[in-house]
Amino acid sequence: MSNPTAAILIIGNEILSGRTQDVNVNFMAKRLAALGIVLSEVRVVPDIPHRIIEAVNALRAAYTEVFTTGGIGPTHDDITSECIAAAFGVPWEIHAETFAAMEAYIGKEKFNAARQRMATLPRGAEPIKNSVSLAPGFSIGNVHVMAGVPRIMQSMFEALEPSLPRGTPIQMQAVYGLGLMEGAIADGLTAIQNRFPQLDLGSYPFRLGIGGGVAIVAKGTDTEAIAQATAEATSLIAAQGIDPIQGEPS
Amino acid sequence: MSNPTAAILIIGNEILSGRTQDVNVNFMAKRLAALGIVLSEVRVVPDIPHRIIEAVNALRAAYTEVFTTGGIGPTHDDITSECIAAAFGVPWEIHAETFAAMEAYIGKEKFNAARQRMATLPRGAEPIKNSVSLAPGFSIGNVHVMAGVPRIMQSMFEALEPSLPRGTPIQMQAVYGLGLMEGAIADGLTAIQNRFPQLDLGSYPFRLGIGGGVAIVAKGTDTEAIAQATAEATSLIAAQGIDPIQGEPS
Repeated sequence: MSNPTAAILIIGNEILSGRTQDVNVNFMAKRLAALGIVLSEVRVVPDIPHRIIEAVNALRAAYTEVFTTGGIGPTHDDITSECIAAAFGVPWEIHAETFAAMEAYIGKEKFNAARQRMATLPRGAEPIKNSVSLAPGFSIGNVHVMAGVPRIMQSMFEALEPSLPRGTPIQMQAVYGLGLMEGAIADGLTAIQNRFPQLDLGSYPFRLGIGGGVAIVAKGTDTEAIAQATAEATSLIAAQGIDPIQGEPS
Repeated sequence: MSNPTAAILIIGNEILSGRTQDVNVNFMAKRLAALGIVLSEVRVVPDIPHRIIEAVNALRAAYTEVFTTGGIGPTHDDITSECIAAAFGVPWEIHAETFAAMEAYIGKEKFNAARQRMATLPRGAEPIKNSVSLAPGFSIGNVHVMAGVPRIMQSMFEALEPSLPRGTPIQMQAVYGLGLMEGAIADGLTAIQNRFPQLDLGSYPFRLGIGGGVAIVAKGTDTEAIAQATAEATSLIAAQGIDPIQGEPS
């Protein structure tokens, strides 16, 4: 595929400790697919400068776009912004426009050193505004730095969306076989995959109450091939004496 | 910390497409913390051989233990096992004991080539049994290969648990300030973090209904320091005129 590619970097001790269940990846994965951007990697790293810097530099070299979440608040454990500046080898400095807007809103006395850190960005960064908080995310090069709090991250992603590159949207279609066993249809599925090399054909066991089955998902940018592959998968399930169920892919 | 470290590698197109919300990381993160194993990185990669091989080799060199999930079923998109063999440079071959057990259970006629792939393991691998499915995961070196289906993964993890290295358990304690703003306590938090360098002190904004606040979480292996740091964070919140709420960390 010649679609743009993307990686997500989650900067989050709270994900690695199990305190927080990440939901940002799933949100972005769906939105990126709709834009035709292929999400190719996700990494979660702790709040340790050299780990963040290494991951940012590895990912921005490998993919068209990189999205980071977490670590842009005012407290000592919010170190993403400084680390991005270090990764790009640029100074980390007051962003005048953001500083002025935050100072006007918060008031001079309460706009303390900690809060001023949120108006401090890598040189050359473009703020990403959002409808929830005055403190912005920012883009620098192909790296987009967003909050970890899902509501704020989503608002930042939406502000960013119009400026992102596009590709042919990535579509999915699914057919379900209740009571179906993967081992019974594996050869038939391989044959379908071989006939449609431009698609990713996935097979996913699922549970439904005390029963279960298999979902067959055709994914790609070729709408007609997706429909044909799904039709063949439907026949494959029916040949096992099971009623295929068409459905949403998730 | 001299605790053992770990990485999780999720092999999953279905996570990257947004079709599936991962829950395996959160399960393992909590269990690893209880064992005193520091989860230091998570990666999600697509079902592409060189991506899997590269990630396995990078992670097994960097961490004490590596846990993979996904891609060990019988269908064409289940390629984890072959890729692990390639990463270790060993043959991928029938595991006689597993083959015999699966053949006896499934029956000779139905134990087709696709299902036999699940009894094919890297040479030297040790099967990880589970209570849900006869098809095992496996360990080879410091890499533990598990199913992606959460119920099966959890059963495999539990079978594996007794053989994992242990460290001093990683504990967390939290105190909440409803209506608290991070920017108001950032300096005080930095001071507490500096007094307890052996802990990770985290500050996490949260939403509760139409309101919100901040959770301060002390994490580490030093029980007494955690209690002291939490007491200091409690005073910090109270000094803002807000009633601190003690609680579970999540």
